[in-house]
Amino acid sequence: MTDTPDYIPPKVWTFEQPNGGRFANINRPIAGPTHEKALPVGRHPLQLYSLATPNGQKVTILLEELLALGHTGAEYDAWLIRINEGDQFSSGFVDINPNSKIPALVDRSGAEPVRVFESGAILLYLAEKFGAFLPAAPAARAECLSWLFWQMGSAPYLGGGFGHFYAYAPVKIEYAINRFAMETKRLLDVLDRRLAESEYLAGPDYTIADIAAFPWFGGLLNGWLYGAAEFLSVGKYTNARRWADAILARPAVVRGRMVNRTSGEPSEQLHERHDARDFETRTQDKLAAVD
Amino acid sequence: MTDTPDYIPPKVWTFEQPNGGRFANINRPIAGPTHEKALPVGRHPLQLYSLATPNGQKVTILLEELLALGHTGAEYDAWLIRINEGDQFSSGFVDINPNSKIPALVDRSGAEPVRVFESGAILLYLAEKFGAFLPAAPAARAECLSWLFWQMGSAPYLGGGFGHFYAYAPVKIEYAINRFAMETKRLLDVLDRRLAESEYLAGPDYTIADIAAFPWFGGLLNGWLYGAAEFLSVGKYTNARRWADAILARPAVVRGRMVNRTSGEPSEQLHERHDARDFETRTQDKLAAVD
Repeated sequence: MTDTPDYIPPKVWTFEQPNGGRFANINRPIAGPTHEKALPVGRHPLQLYSLATPNGQKVTILLEELLALGHTGAEYDAWLIRINEGDQFSSGFVDINPNSKIPALVDRSGAEPVRVFESGAILLYLAEKFGAFLPAAPAARAECLSWLFWQMGSAPYLGGGFGHFYAYAPVKIEYAINRFAMETKRLLDVLDRRLAESEYLAGPDYTIADIAAFPWFGGLLNGWLYGAAEFLSVGKYTNARRWADAILARPAVVRGRMVNRTSGEPSEQLHERHDARDFETRTQDKLAAVD
Repeated sequence: MTDTPDYIPPKVWTFEQPNGGRFANINRPIAGPTHEKALPVGRHPLQLYSLATPNGQKVTILLEELLALGHTGAEYDAWLIRINEGDQFSSGFVDINPNSKIPALVDRSGAEPVRVFESGAILLYLAEKFGAFLPAAPAARAECLSWLFWQMGSAPYLGGGFGHFYAYAPVKIEYAINRFAMETKRLLDVLDRRLAESEYLAGPDYTIADIAAFPWFGGLLNGWLYGAAEFLSVGKYTNARRWADAILARPAVVRGRMVNRTSGEPSEQLHERHDARDFETRTQDKLAAVD
């Protein structure tokens, strides 16, 4: 234990200064917009406002999968929300997601625009709209929803817990790192045991439960997230590895991971996506390798 | 900052000892069962295995609301899972929730039992099964799902983040308390602003989004959770207060909060629920006060 034991919280918490660490400048104790600015609107039925974080990738992967299946109604404009610059606090963004988090979607295919926020809600909304990647039979649907919600309730421990204290906080706090490393490994083991008995999370078919879990757990397994593959001994989760490799071999996943990406290799970044041809110059080599 | 800056995480994390604090004995870095034991099964279509934590309360509140509407198919047996004694690690429990968390539900009304785990998945499953507390129109349904998933993604910051570091951790860590107090207040403000413009989270009607959010946010607003009402200055969230009071005035909510409860006033504890009459001796005074 490296923490001094004599801190006593005040009776009333007050916001005195940024709390420190990466993302300190975008964390606030209040909600609502900080500035007036409308969101751009493109020509497609679906307007996505996002960034290629794990939660952002879920939606672009599903949209690319839907297009690959021939659902032309899933054509979309993906606009970049630079969270480190506070784009999520514009009046336009807050209107479609009062929680100021990416991703957020507007479906303009009907008489009135429909807003959907939270990545899990967007996956479910799109899967139901197009009748894809979500089993129809009650028991299979229940299994898919259970794993989808499991991922949504787990990600804060992986990201806001483990990732924050291991990689981003301005000081390494042993207690907090141990707490969230333990939970992250437990969740990896839940995933691994499930994938020892089932090809995909909800059963024999690839569903939105896998699309939700892959960017987080695939990111940990591949060392993309927090550079923690060795720290977490991810090599032992062999069933999860098999699953992540199978998902990463899908061309729609490769495309989905590029959309709204602003870091990494330039060839893997597509800041905005407005047309299927936007990928062409960027993905040729990458897709040839997995096809 | 009260944390010494010289801790360096090891290259590979290892589990050496319980991490400390309340619940230390039930936290592990692996999944799976610790002992062989079957779950009990009662006479009703729905078998719930739970405890009256905020996540547990969501499901018992919805079941009581469904019964109050006359949905006799929602009759249920609620079995107690004592998480501090490791009941969630029995082979029977792990079979219905590989994640070893309450609540977990088995629907035995069909030809084959259907398992559902994660409180959000159970709420959605039951709302769809009975066609209640979930709007049918696409835009209203999208709004309800967005707020339902918002609650599911937020609760870990309230509980595993703020509650743990403020109330349960063996040492008070200033950085962690500040981090999660700020996020908890931001989420309270998101809720409060939404309820300034809308009677309930998803619109004019009370839905599963409210049932999901109430046990957490109502618990913070009433000081039931973590004794943090003064610390978080909850009095300022007047719209959320109006909403929480309206929900708490519903007799089904009063009943739902008692089921599987093992703490507090004896008159508010119903360790197991197998029949509507189980409430009679316990709720008479309480219900008279809110009816």
